[in-house]
Amino acid sequence: MFRTRSDFEDFLGAMPQPDMRSREEAMLHQQQLTKPPGSLGRLEEIAVFLAGWQKPAIRADHIQVVLFAGNHGVTKQGVSPYPAEVTAQMVANFEHGGAAINALANAFGLQLFVHPLELERPTGDISVEDAMTEDETLAALNAGADAVDANADIVAIGEMGIGNTTIAATLCAASLGGTGLDWAGAGTGLDSAGVVHKAKVIDRALARVGSLTAFDCLQRLGGRELAAMVGAVCAARAIRIPVLLDGFVACAAMAPVFARQPAILDHCLAGHRSAERGHARLLERFDLKPLLDLEMRLGEGSGAALATAIARAAVATHTRMATFASAGVSDRDA
Amino acid sequence: MFRTRSDFEDFLGAMPQPDMRSREEAMLHQQQLTKPPGSLGRLEEIAVFLAGWQKPAIRADHIQVVLFAGNHGVTKQGVSPYPAEVTAQMVANFEHGGAAINALANAFGLQLFVHPLELERPTGDISVEDAMTEDETLAALNAGADAVDANADIVAIGEMGIGNTTIAATLCAASLGGTGLDWAGAGTGLDSAGVVHKAKVIDRALARVGSLTAFDCLQRLGGRELAAMVGAVCAARAIRIPVLLDGFVACAAMAPVFARQPAILDHCLAGHRSAERGHARLLERFDLKPLLDLEMRLGEGSGAALATAIARAAVATHTRMATFASAGVSDRDA
Repeated sequence: MFRTRSDFEDFLGAMPQPDMRSREEAMLHQQQLTKPPGSLGRLEEIAVFLAGWQKPAIRADHIQVVLFAGNHGVTKQGVSPYPAEVTAQMVANFEHGGAAINALANAFGLQLFVHPLELERPTGDISVEDAMTEDETLAALNAGADAVDANADIVAIGEMGIGNTTIAATLCAASLGGTGLDWAGAGTGLDSAGVVHKAKVIDRALARVGSLTAFDCLQRLGGRELAAMVGAVCAARAIRIPVLLDGFVACAAMAPVFARQPAILDHCLAGHRSAERGHARLLERFDLKPLLDLEMRLGEGSGAALATAIARAAVATHTRMATFASAGVSDRDA
Repeated sequence: MFRTRSDFEDFLGAMPQPDMRSREEAMLHQQQLTKPPGSLGRLEEIAVFLAGWQKPAIRADHIQVVLFAGNHGVTKQGVSPYPAEVTAQMVANFEHGGAAINALANAFGLQLFVHPLELERPTGDISVEDAMTEDETLAALNAGADAVDANADIVAIGEMGIGNTTIAATLCAASLGGTGLDWAGAGTGLDSAGVVHKAKVIDRALARVGSLTAFDCLQRLGGRELAAMVGAVCAARAIRIPVLLDGFVACAAMAPVFARQPAILDHCLAGHRSAERGHARLLERFDLKPLLDLEMRLGEGSGAALATAIARAAVATHTRMATFASAGVSDRDA
């Protein structure tokens, strides 16, 4: 999808937009269904949102979960309580069906695709060097773009990578302002001293670079699985597939792009609000209201996978309810 | 289940309690699953909650939605923008599969049972007379108790009844204190003048009665579908089936019982926080954290039905994930 960094920049300048007429038709349809107007709350909003992207009717049958894994040189700085080997071990766990995302995908009938991205070649330690070369960044973006199934109704985006909440917090600070301490959280389970140390590592990375373009930010401070999620979100946008974002890392991957082009999130829903500290702040900056708030902080696309149930409920009520006229139900003030 | 009002009182004094040992075992099991401890947030809490009630293993395959409908004499006071005939019309809509709860039950594979309760005989207008006789109250409680399927893994509780947010607000004020205005909301769509009028109707009902026992409160100020929900919650408790409560009306039905015996809610989860004004306040009094907050305010069990997805996710992750040992994943600080 992206042969050069210019292709990426060009895409952000000319993305498909939502179909406003389909949205209006969906809003009118909602008014005719056998319920007080507005009483399905955000389910109604989601139906209208989907109508802006999906043709000819909204649907949530075929939901794809794309899960990208990467390793990070910054783990050398002691930013995670888990060893970097866990990334590959968890990928094996995904492949054998033993992880949380497997259980959720199975329970909800979601198609899960796992993409480990050169786990044997961690990115550079961002506190002292750039994460990737330009070619590596393009490769990661394209791996993400290629992962999207053009037949999916909705794509849910997730990640796994020991050390990647450090990368995520760094991308947020570099793109949206603030220090390491503004964005760093406990990740998989750091104590408060660990978070302070992590924040200092982030501040070193920030000090090493100046103001960055979206592409440069992903290249110099990012990670393969984060760039891949950006690629997947862009590929979905190109073919008008709505996206369910997962938690802090998945959203943070979008921060550099959002800073350059806020409309990139117009086809995205925030699946949940993670308990990871920076996520609430980031969702506020994105002006995205999460569908769920269940104090989860696992990653793996788990929050997005769970939120597919909400999207399905929105589609089911929008498409399967009777109207006041068809059901012979009196409308208000009758 | 309840031949006399004493049977009801006696039940509240001697209810089954959660199995604390099963809860502890579930907590230990959660620690061994391939995820950072606590990272599934409320899914872990729900798994432990279910373990306190379900034997030998937690499960959420067979979920029953019981939906009770009733009519209310208080609609004569102009407390709803919809005519009372809509209750029967919506019951027909449920039976023909055209309502929101049908779409949700179908999408999520839930068994829906609709129980209209003497719709041709509205309860007394509570602003001037008692809602029911003692026998009518017992009949409604027993209709609810009889509706619970002993083979259900989880029972979701809902209601439909034009005028019943007035009944609900009255039960809250009578049981937990406060005035009509503290608990009244827009219901199906009153404007602010309508809410003020509704609050005055509630205050007349409150002034008519003094301090009441739980049973008397349901009899004098309640409604058939609200008493039926209480009966269903009690019957589920008797056979250790966890309950998903729906929104304001379903929760308000429990307020008189909660005021007498707060432990009645120990086997209940709050499916969602309704946009109906009194619900947030009521959930705080109950000390129940809702699973969802999607600005819904429809009733019909719709919020509880949607929350079954969260319960299923909790069961799926608890029962189907690998452990660190079985998956060969390194635990933290390894």
